[in-house]
This record gives sequence, C-alpha cells and structure tokens, in this order.
Amino acid sequence: MTPILFYGVPSGCSFGSIVALEWLGRPYQLSRIEMPETVTSDAYRQINPVGETPTLRTESGHVISESMSILNHLGALGIDLGLGHKQGTPGFDQLNQTLAFLNTSFFGAYVPLWYALEHGSDESEKRVLTEFARAKVQKVHTDLSTMLGDQPWLMGDHRTVADAYFIGIARWNEYHQVVDRRDYPNLQRLYDRLEADPAVIFAHAIEDQRDAVSSGGFLGEVPFDDALAVDLLQAA
Amino acid sequence: MTPILFYGVPSGCSFGSIVALEWLGRPYQLSRIEMPETVTSDAYRQINPVGETPTLRTESGHVISESMSILNHLGALGIDLGLGHKQGTPGFDQLNQTLAFLNTSFFGAYVPLWYALEHGSDESEKRVLTEFARAKVQKVHTDLSTMLGDQPWLMGDHRTVADAYFIGIARWNEYHQVVDRRDYPNLQRLYDRLEADPAVIFAHAIEDQRDAVSSGGFLGEVPFDDALAVDLLQAA
Repeated sequence: MTPILFYGVPSGCSFGSIVALEWLGRPYQLSRIEMPETVTSDAYRQINPVGETPTLRTESGHVISESMSILNHLGALGIDLGLGHKQGTPGFDQLNQTLAFLNTSFFGAYVPLWYALEHGSDESEKRVLTEFARAKVQKVHTDLSTMLGDQPWLMGDHRTVADAYFIGIARWNEYHQVVDRRDYPNLQRLYDRLEADPAVIFAHAIEDQRDAVSSGGFLGEVPFDDALAVDLLQAA
Repeated sequence: MTPILFYGVPSGCSFGSIVALEWLGRPYQLSRIEMPETVTSDAYRQINPVGETPTLRTESGHVISESMSILNHLGALGIDLGLGHKQGTPGFDQLNQTLAFLNTSFFGAYVPLWYALEHGSDESEKRVLTEFARAKVQKVHTDLSTMLGDQPWLMGDHRTVADAYFIGIARWNEYHQVVDRRDYPNLQRLYDRLEADPAVIFAHAIEDQRDAVSSGGFLGEVPFDDALAVDLLQAA
C-alpha cells in the first residue's frame, strides 16, 4: 500500500517528515490532523496512543510515531540518495547524534513557549516560561551554529533527513521571536537554502492549504477517517 | 582500542548507556565526568562540543554523543542478544519510536526541574517550573504505563536498550518526587525488575563510587585526562 504521513497543523514538527518524503521521491500520501482537536481524539489515538504528530503508516502497513523514528525509517530507504546511512557505519552514528540533538535540545527549547501559548497561563507564568525557554533557545542556536560551521548542510556536503527536521523546527522562531537568527549567520545561511528548496516550498503550501507542487512522489491527501478505515480493516 | 564511555555524575542519563554496555558483554572502560565542572570545560568540549554527557569513544576511535545515538550504536552491536534490531525491520522502527519517546517526552519532562534546581531560581520561578514539569511528568507516566501494559519489558518479551535508558531516567523521580510511581503499577513492576538487575546494581555502584561488580566486560575506569590524551594522539 501507499505510505501515508499523518501530519499535524498548525506548525507541526511533521513538516520535517513531509520534506524528507519529498526528497525521497517515492509515492506517498498525506493526511491532515488538526491540533489540538483531532490529535487528542480517541480515533487518532488508535494509531498514536500518546496523541502526537507525525505518524507514518508504512508501505508494509505498520505504524510508526515520533519524528526521530520516522526520519530514521525514511533515511534508511534513502541511503542511495545520501539521505541516511547504513547501520553500523560512523555516518549512521553521526546522523543519529544530530537528529537526537535536534529532537531533544532544539525542539525541547521551544516546548515551554508552546505550553505557555496553549495553556493561557497568567502573565508571571508566561514570563518565567519564556525566560526559561530563551536561555535554552539561545544555547541551542549557538551550539547548532558551531556544529554547522561553514558546511552547506548539517552533516557536511549532502542534505540528509537532519536538514529536513531542522527546517521544521527552525521556522518556529519566526513565530516566537526568541532570537534574531541573523546573529547566527551559519544557521541563517542553512535556513535560507532550505526555504528556497522545492520540498520546503511544497510543505509550506500543504500546511497553508495553497496549491502545492510536488517535486517528489506525492499522490494527494486522504481524509483522516478514510485513512483510519483502511488501518482498521488491516488490523481486522 | 577498547571503547570508553564518558559518563556524567551525579544522576546523569549516562546511566542507561552503562547498563546497555553491561548487557552487551563486550570489553569497555568508563571515564567519570563531574557535572557541571568538567562537562563544561574546554577540555571536555573537545570531544563533546555542546558540553553534555554521555559521550562514547568507539572501538574504531570515533566519538559519539547523545544517548539516542549511543544506544542505537550499542543496540546494533547487540542484535544477536535482542538488545537492538536490524535497520529496515519493523522492530528497528518500534525501538526507535520508544527511544525517541523516552528521550524527548520522558527525559524532557524533568528538564525544568533540573533547571530550577541548578539555577537557584526564586520561589515563584521554581513554582511555575515545577507545575509545568508536573503536568508533563504525569502525562508521560500515564503514556508509558499504557505502552508497557503487562509486558515484561518495554518492547515485549526481551529487554532492549530502551529498558536500559528507561531506568536511568525513571530513578529521577526518587529525587524530584513529582509522582508516586505506585500509582502506575506497570511502571513500578518494570522499575523493580530493573533495579534487581546486576547491570543496574553495577551502574549504581559506579555512580556512588562503591565496589562495582561487573557482569559484563568492564575493564576499569580511566581518568578523563588520560582518555583525552589518547583521543588527541589519534587525531594528530
């Protein structure tokens, strides 16, 4: 069957998995999950018990959640394209190291900001959470900038699933405005390169429900209820 | 060369990598990194630019940081023992999914508590960060308990690197006392099983600098300066 990525909107970190799917070039479909409504529903929890996006239903019909796991899966399919590395090689370890840093430190730095926004907390609570996040966001920008150096991509000469994940998180700063990315010229350069990439332009268009031109194997959107029905049939 | 794990104390999440190394049974050494002193030093940043533990110097001499990447590396060496899975299999995806959940949601839930503790914040700041963390810690205990169900180990019938990582984080609750784990009997059962495991008993003894009896391939501790000198020789 055709793989389906269940992606969360607005501003989900699923964005990175959409970019990676485009780069991979294989056939896939997308299914839009509204947050927080659908993502916390009992129906969605049948395929993602913790109520988070993204979730990938693979070609063989099994269901994977967590960006880190989905990107590792897509990276393995894209070894020939340089998107991932073979298990047991130093490249595999280095890519996992970068993905883990992005997934914990970079993503994690923004978690208190989303929390403050979504839980309508009072002003002093918002201030504490914002200051806590600011320290984390600044450190992670400094660290990532050092890691990147003057390389074109996070892992060196080739784009990988790590760059796809990066752009899905990096854009959150446009929203929360915690740091000025121009103070980190290495990161700004990577950001600009990615924003000009057809896969990233496609992912933005998908999120915003504008006309989206795939340069990969996108075969259209599937309403969640239809996609779920297929899963339940499979499981029956 | 013999692999060396640079592990952080006190209470580092490196604990899980020590347990995984014991389960793997191959020769290894340990090098103790005091936090926050040594971990933030220029010397340590030569092998871990972001100033975090653990770091693993592998058999082939390359250096890996981030628990997720180290555990994936050790899991690949331990496929025959059931500690990890071959890339491209559903087991590989499921293990990565669980590791990612532990690394982001479970680990991440405690980050504000460590921050409040280490940055000597004022009382209202501590209160906000503790309440923020409490909501996260409760959710993650509920989710993990559901994932585990009545299985003996997180991934089912066999212990994997995910269980090793779990115990290194789960014990933080003894310290921060955010939830009562007995309210999550599935997790308490896994916790008790792991606390009785010789590898976990060993890892506690290492952290506490008591006599540590290895049931794996532990070949002793190496002072950080000596371990670093070897790295710099290699790099020269």
